[in-house]
Amino acid sequence: MSDEDEGKAAPVLVVGSVALDSVRTPFGEVAEALGGAASYASVAASFFAPPRIVAVVGQDFPQGHVAALAERGVDLSGLRRSTGRTFRWTGYYEYDLNQAHTVSTELNVFANFRPELPENYRHSPYVFLANIDPVLQLYVLDQVRRPRLVACDTMNYWIESAPDKVREVLARVDVALMNDAEARQLTGEANLIAAARRVLEYGPGVVIVKKGEHGAVMLSADSYFTAPGYPLEEVRDPTGAGDTFAGALMGYLARCGECGDGELRRAIICGSVLASFTVEDFSLRRLFRLTPEEIAERYHEIIRITRFDAL
Amino acid sequence: MSDEDEGKAAPVLVVGSVALDSVRTPFGEVAEALGGAASYASVAASFFAPPRIVAVVGQDFPQGHVAALAERGVDLSGLRRSTGRTFRWTGYYEYDLNQAHTVSTELNVFANFRPELPENYRHSPYVFLANIDPVLQLYVLDQVRRPRLVACDTMNYWIESAPDKVREVLARVDVALMNDAEARQLTGEANLIAAARRVLEYGPGVVIVKKGEHGAVMLSADSYFTAPGYPLEEVRDPTGAGDTFAGALMGYLARCGECGDGELRRAIICGSVLASFTVEDFSLRRLFRLTPEEIAERYHEIIRITRFDAL
Repeated sequence: MSDEDEGKAAPVLVVGSVALDSVRTPFGEVAEALGGAASYASVAASFFAPPRIVAVVGQDFPQGHVAALAERGVDLSGLRRSTGRTFRWTGYYEYDLNQAHTVSTELNVFANFRPELPENYRHSPYVFLANIDPVLQLYVLDQVRRPRLVACDTMNYWIESAPDKVREVLARVDVALMNDAEARQLTGEANLIAAARRVLEYGPGVVIVKKGEHGAVMLSADSYFTAPGYPLEEVRDPTGAGDTFAGALMGYLARCGECGDGELRRAIICGSVLASFTVEDFSLRRLFRLTPEEIAERYHEIIRITRFDAL
Repeated sequence: MSDEDEGKAAPVLVVGSVALDSVRTPFGEVAEALGGAASYASVAASFFAPPRIVAVVGQDFPQGHVAALAERGVDLSGLRRSTGRTFRWTGYYEYDLNQAHTVSTELNVFANFRPELPENYRHSPYVFLANIDPVLQLYVLDQVRRPRLVACDTMNYWIESAPDKVREVLARVDVALMNDAEARQLTGEANLIAAARRVLEYGPGVVIVKKGEHGAVMLSADSYFTAPGYPLEEVRDPTGAGDTFAGALMGYLARCGECGDGELRRAIICGSVLASFTVEDFSLRRLFRLTPEEIAERYHEIIRITRFDAL
């Protein structure tokens, strides 16, 4: 898990957005900070395996952000710089940090994003399709060759506007990631376990439902796992928590080289751990100053807070 | 944990309501079924230790309900039968089973409830003050002599109408039980961990926050524990889940005879297990047909669904 061992792990391909986020919470604010699902996911993955991203930014994208990603070992040969402005999201959170309020979404160059995989990316063994148009997720799947594990994320917008395409993606991935509201929305099941079971019927071998502060659950045909949220007293900005979770999960699996039930469970805990760091500060600030020792310590703390003996 | 060993455990005193509940959910309905916090808590406790209750019912209270409680070994010498009608609650749940909708609350004889402890109850080593007027909870505390462990529950109504009295109770108990919304309401803290820590400052050594389907968390000065909700696909009626949780927790602690961190953790899992059975059917039906083997099996399943290895 130390940075030096990274070379041993298989690479993780992340396809998604790189954005400039302006975010305000009761605990502070940032303007045009590095954001986007691919940024969070790739940096989180970088603590376990070498990430590579496919994304697009505009000509206004600060070189400092590029350098910061590169410093985390993110392969940026799939980051296209297009004519125009970078994707921008402006939003805020009130005291209920579970609820993001969007002020504006400027797609800009992201509106014409068409993820073309560089030739050397096509054999990526681990593929994470972050939350983008499911049509584009399918387009990526058409380009990758025999990946070992593919995971996808989605969001309410696509479930509403293109549910058939979302299900088409789910039929072609190994791991489906979504939050509890999305699982309920996609399946029409109020009960979360029933909803997760229904998602399995769409095709993925594993469904992982993210529940924010309540942690995450994993369901497969023959296993169920429940992971707690790490108990944080200070959450400054929840933006990127889900993407961080997914990135760390994929990175850890790539590092393991196996994706059995035990590996998946540990990967989910790694996801929770990394996400708990992300929300401690705005943008990717906390991830950029995170150390492998801190990860190991918090992982161990989750062991301590969940353990109990047999009757 | 088998019924036969029960005699070994210290008795658990439960003070609270015994009611007739009329409940409708999307999965069925019951009319004037056995309900009330003291009913659920005492029957849940009975699987681990001998319970005794202090409560009041009217002259219309069905003898069959009395017999059912007695059959579970509940000492009913503190159950007063007053002139008038029994406390009745009528309510319903829609598909969001986390939200109870009250149609009517008829306090009836419960309006004049004044919990007088029979002499032989005053030395009860384990005391559970279910959700009643905090003034009455204090009145019970004035009557018990050197209890080993006292736990209390409360609800939004008392937090709004008598917050000082609620805090006075909290200052005198060992274990404070409440749900997440109540913890936030009582402390004004949006962050659940911060809220729980604030409750500790009021006096109890341990605070246990119930989170419904998301399980429960326990916080003390030197420990934090998080228990998952048992993954149920069919919840028919959530009424009484919290009271069942508390009763089983107290019963298990009484059975252990110790209340260290390890015992508390196991007690919380027992609470989750029993609550998961309660919600599978209306009223106390599922508890009345529950077996110690089923409890042991579900406890073990919670071990399986929470375990993961070190990194």
